[in-house]
Amino acid sequence: MGTIGDVGEFGLIARLTRRLPQGPDVRLGPGDDAAVISAPDGRVVATTDLLVEGRHFRRDWSGPYDIGRKAAAQNLADVVAMGARPTALLVGFAAPPDTEAGWAERLYDGLADECRVAGASVAGGDVVGAPGITLAITALGDLGGAAPLTRSGARPGDVVAVRGRLGHAAAGLALLTGGRDGPAELIAAHRRPEPPYAAGEEARSHGATALLDVSDGLVQDLGHLAGASGVRIEIDSSAVPVPAILGPDGLLHALTGGEDHAFAGTFPPDAVLPSSWTVIGTAREGAGVRVDGREPPTGAWDHFPT
Amino acid sequence: MGTIGDVGEFGLIARLTRRLPQGPDVRLGPGDDAAVISAPDGRVVATTDLLVEGRHFRRDWSGPYDIGRKAAAQNLADVVAMGARPTALLVGFAAPPDTEAGWAERLYDGLADECRVAGASVAGGDVVGAPGITLAITALGDLGGAAPLTRSGARPGDVVAVRGRLGHAAAGLALLTGGRDGPAELIAAHRRPEPPYAAGEEARSHGATALLDVSDGLVQDLGHLAGASGVRIEIDSSAVPVPAILGPDGLLHALTGGEDHAFAGTFPPDAVLPSSWTVIGTAREGAGVRVDGREPPTGAWDHFPT
Repeated sequence: MGTIGDVGEFGLIARLTRRLPQGPDVRLGPGDDAAVISAPDGRVVATTDLLVEGRHFRRDWSGPYDIGRKAAAQNLADVVAMGARPTALLVGFAAPPDTEAGWAERLYDGLADECRVAGASVAGGDVVGAPGITLAITALGDLGGAAPLTRSGARPGDVVAVRGRLGHAAAGLALLTGGRDGPAELIAAHRRPEPPYAAGEEARSHGATALLDVSDGLVQDLGHLAGASGVRIEIDSSAVPVPAILGPDGLLHALTGGEDHAFAGTFPPDAVLPSSWTVIGTAREGAGVRVDGREPPTGAWDHFPT
Repeated sequence: MGTIGDVGEFGLIARLTRRLPQGPDVRLGPGDDAAVISAPDGRVVATTDLLVEGRHFRRDWSGPYDIGRKAAAQNLADVVAMGARPTALLVGFAAPPDTEAGWAERLYDGLADECRVAGASVAGGDVVGAPGITLAITALGDLGGAAPLTRSGARPGDVVAVRGRLGHAAAGLALLTGGRDGPAELIAAHRRPEPPYAAGEEARSHGATALLDVSDGLVQDLGHLAGASGVRIEIDSSAVPVPAILGPDGLLHALTGGEDHAFAGTFPPDAVLPSSWTVIGTAREGAGVRVDGREPPTGAWDHFPT
């Protein structure tokens, strides 16, 4: 099949676009100056992330399909964390000309499949040459007439609950870093997060006062929520789900590991949550995050390591 | 002030966000999982571009402010080329930790100022560490109830017209490549395009059947329009605006040079266009682009040079 340098920019775009089925929210898909996507609410939720090879993914640790799934998932989760329904992704793809065109195709297959899981489509994008591989993903979504679930709505007395896996991706990354290839479930969790996309709608229908997706680590992300809401978040570590597979560092992974894209929210004290949600703490007057009354462990992701 | 590694991810985000005034279309700006932007039309126009240092800009040829202006301009122009009003940008910024924080601040000043010219705001984004500087810009816009101006609506008999500078950025780039620093007007055109943002509304109100922005070069971009519309575009080279400052290669620059972000459109034969538009040709039955009846010159931008 050859490299993307062989097939050229427009050849590559044609190959990739062919793999991107367009859902009903896409009024005008790839091929024009811009895409047109439905926004029936009259507002659009929009978020963007850059993923850089060597920082956010490694081609020797993850295949292109999983890199695509994960890149889409982390942005779709941001849209869901606003209480919105994802509608579309735009994908910027930078790669060296000697990258195999088949590698790029499998990447886009992963992007398209994760979109399908969340009910969205890849509606447009850009491909450029670059020394390394970089993905720029923008996700759009629709609020369906509801107020966005921000980080700033938590009130003292609210309960704090989570939905989705915690610490699995971090434990998997620790295994790969240590040169190990199992347990397979943890490696898979690092390679391909499975955000519970239903969490946004569930949180909204149960009166959530604030919601976010756990991308940098539970303690760090709840710290952002605490700061934006002007509350202190108190976590009871014994309530945090730590399955045995996470190993001896399980609680640390669950508290500080990012990239599982679980959802954490606050709810009124009398909220009756579905069993898929686990109450792990309470919002109080004050500031910051406490775990069992103490300063929490650190170990969160640093985007600019020196 | 120090490097972005010194100030850290969240310190950098705080510094940059402070420089981004939020216009009325931004319902929720930077700081949450996603931004919320007005989309009164019920549809949103969305486009994304990646700009890679060394490929799309050089820090020794352009300062951060101009890089920001240009990065914003090329995406805002794509929104206008759909006949839409730009509302917001999302900006992904990847940079090495040793990048000066002040450099990043001036970049964002440029992004914000270009947005202001077009009536939009920088509503959100992402900052990450990377070996080189990469910008990922997503622009959003609103159609105001009108049909999008696509590339596929040109019909045989339509006139082809352009609005904005052609060849200036390419001539400026040729000067810089040759180690020259003047004429200043051409260097400035390379550093900071000035898309005539009013062109989208003007084209719409004069019945344009197709519109695009000239990013890769007039001949190449009209080739895309011809292909999408199923027509042949015939250009009369004597009608193409080639000011003397473009020098002996002026016509070649005007036909093949990109990055000025002029607009090219097709209009019904009886359209009476404002003087800011120049009629340069006609759409006919057939395929491809002809200049004075011949195969056009090549020389367009290749995204994957080998």
